[in-house]
Amino acid sequence: MKFNFSSYLDFMRPSEIRELAKYATSKDIISFGGGMPNPATFPKDRLKEIMVDVLDRDGDAALQYGNTAGLNSLREELVGFLKRTEGIDCAPEDIIITSGSQQALYAIGKLLCNPGDGVITEDPTYVGAISAFNANAIRMHGVPMDGQGVVVDVLEEKVRSLVSKGKAPRFIYLIPNFQNPTGRTLTEKRRQEVIRIASEYGIPVVEDNPYGELRYSGERVRSIRSLDGSVIYLGTFSKVMTPGLRLGYIVAPREVTEKVNLLKQALDLATNSFSQYVATEYIRRGIIYEQIRFNVELYRKRRDAMVRALREEMGDMADFSVPDGGMFIWVTLNNSVDTSRMLIDAIKAGVTYVSGQAFAPNGGHEHSMRLNFTFPSEEKIYEGVRRLRSVILSRAQEAVS
Amino acid sequence: MKFNFSSYLDFMRPSEIRELAKYATSKDIISFGGGMPNPATFPKDRLKEIMVDVLDRDGDAALQYGNTAGLNSLREELVGFLKRTEGIDCAPEDIIITSGSQQALYAIGKLLCNPGDGVITEDPTYVGAISAFNANAIRMHGVPMDGQGVVVDVLEEKVRSLVSKGKAPRFIYLIPNFQNPTGRTLTEKRRQEVIRIASEYGIPVVEDNPYGELRYSGERVRSIRSLDGSVIYLGTFSKVMTPGLRLGYIVAPREVTEKVNLLKQALDLATNSFSQYVATEYIRRGIIYEQIRFNVELYRKRRDAMVRALREEMGDMADFSVPDGGMFIWVTLNNSVDTSRMLIDAIKAGVTYVSGQAFAPNGGHEHSMRLNFTFPSEEKIYEGVRRLRSVILSRAQEAVS
Repeated sequence: MKFNFSSYLDFMRPSEIRELAKYATSKDIISFGGGMPNPATFPKDRLKEIMVDVLDRDGDAALQYGNTAGLNSLREELVGFLKRTEGIDCAPEDIIITSGSQQALYAIGKLLCNPGDGVITEDPTYVGAISAFNANAIRMHGVPMDGQGVVVDVLEEKVRSLVSKGKAPRFIYLIPNFQNPTGRTLTEKRRQEVIRIASEYGIPVVEDNPYGELRYSGERVRSIRSLDGSVIYLGTFSKVMTPGLRLGYIVAPREVTEKVNLLKQALDLATNSFSQYVATEYIRRGIIYEQIRFNVELYRKRRDAMVRALREEMGDMADFSVPDGGMFIWVTLNNSVDTSRMLIDAIKAGVTYVSGQAFAPNGGHEHSMRLNFTFPSEEKIYEGVRRLRSVILSRAQEAVS
Repeated sequence: MKFNFSSYLDFMRPSEIRELAKYATSKDIISFGGGMPNPATFPKDRLKEIMVDVLDRDGDAALQYGNTAGLNSLREELVGFLKRTEGIDCAPEDIIITSGSQQALYAIGKLLCNPGDGVITEDPTYVGAISAFNANAIRMHGVPMDGQGVVVDVLEEKVRSLVSKGKAPRFIYLIPNFQNPTGRTLTEKRRQEVIRIASEYGIPVVEDNPYGELRYSGERVRSIRSLDGSVIYLGTFSKVMTPGLRLGYIVAPREVTEKVNLLKQALDLATNSFSQYVATEYIRRGIIYEQIRFNVELYRKRRDAMVRALREEMGDMADFSVPDGGMFIWVTLNNSVDTSRMLIDAIKAGVTYVSGQAFAPNGGHEHSMRLNFTFPSEEKIYEGVRRLRSVILSRAQEAVS
């Protein structure tokens, strides 16, 4: 049988991150590559208690098909959580539970864009968003970032230029806190500017906030959604509970959630009921707040370790910025080494990362790489950065000789 | 903010079934509407044991992100399960684990069809397939069914006619066992014919087999995939474990699974890891086979109860066929009552069903309805059919008067 595949596949490319995931679990290799939380943060004993209670008390419903929009009690708990953590005012009906926030990205892309339509993203941006948008044949218009996040002047100019050509972007996609991959945080002033631009040109904002609760230093900046109720906000349990239970959510105006609900029926009928019952209790019992405190303490040390290691080992060969939170440090080499080509050498030397090109909506970033500091131990972080240094040095020498 | 939605939405319509799901759990209403397994079949105690063991033994991995293609150990267990139950020979690499088989339907539709392309389906067909295909702007060409399943002569004629117009269908979608909604089973002779037609015209076959293990009478018929390795086979844990853990799978030639893997990265990154660890143990410990035996015994009684009730209460006003398995009986009224218009009266009278139109890929089936017999008790089945009878009678009288 000869299979003829659809032209959507012309836009899809294998994710380097997913390809590398297999190395992340190999014992000899130090992985800075994944975007994985540290399993030490998984509250296994508390989850076990909750799971047993859920089966005893709500087993019939927790194992049955659920509503497409999500479990009502979870949506109610999220209202309180979002108010307390992000200052977001919303009702349970404004929330749709998704199978991870990846599903939310795919759904929003599909619902707001026809094939060939364009969206604004940060440049670099999250590889999962690139994958979701590519799968919907969406064009990405990347806007550069600096230490204060996306450069809003350039963003406005790009929006204006696209609108004037009759190609208005269908939304502006931003990860304002500890951005993936750069670790940078958008200032409040710029958030206000984004809201102004969005309103002036009538372009929806999609705010993706997976890392918001993982702040290790500096002052919290208010979420864009808390400043403007028309923002489409994406959240996830992956970084404050566990990723394996695959729970994310969308907070959006009712006309958007209705459409997401309709599409989600086609995508997977409903999110895992059991995971949703577990997450409900996880918030209700306050474990989520304990866990956030635990994660912040653990990850702050890891971030500090990686920053120290980078300063000591790679201060002479790379630039990087210190993130106030999240999971990643973005490193740009100041030599001509191509991080994508170097990757196989790095794996041989026992260290992985994700090369900058994976995050490039429009190409480039050949000399950058994203390093994850939440998964490896502090000791491994030092050793991994040392390995990275010597791989870079030998590649740089090869280039010269 | 004014949201502009994509034109995919022109093809999507709310599912009557999902809309009705809320009534299914209301105490006063007898639901023949859902496609829900009976919670009495959920092996809660065994699942509790397994979950505790999984957390104790594999907690770190079971709560972490997993591979996009699925947990290797689950795919290995499925190889044995599929061989034993369906006579299917395949390797773990031929299997992709999906977030329920709904995700598989969506992915196969998207990967094999461009918007506007056509596929062949049974008529009537599964509402979730209609939803998945509509969301991808796929045209459905329904082929009528009789007591032996889809009528292959008509199927061949339709394929030939479409091919001659240069509009070859991109695949043939069939639910050969205890079809949803008709409960009918495709004979082995016809399965062989389908394989011949598929091969002759070069059209892939997608075999959806959610109910295969739920046989209450008659002889097992071999799966189409066991007769032809090029078939794309869809399976699910929803009817042999629980639907709430959202696990399905695709068995397909390598070139198809590779593409599914790529798309799934965009759809939701990976299926729930925890559910997959649980399902692995569920097969490994043999509980799945005990559960199938339990379900078959329970559901056979329910089917028999509904058949008896229909014969006694509606023998004079409707035709229906006795399914050898599965979850549904398809009832066609022999009067002019429109089952879709009647639904609100039925709900008021305390009984729900899904009207025939929900399953119509090309319209029609106004006088049919799908009744589920796995969820309600035998007593409720009798009472529900009695309520249905009186609602039909009063609608029929209104129509006359």
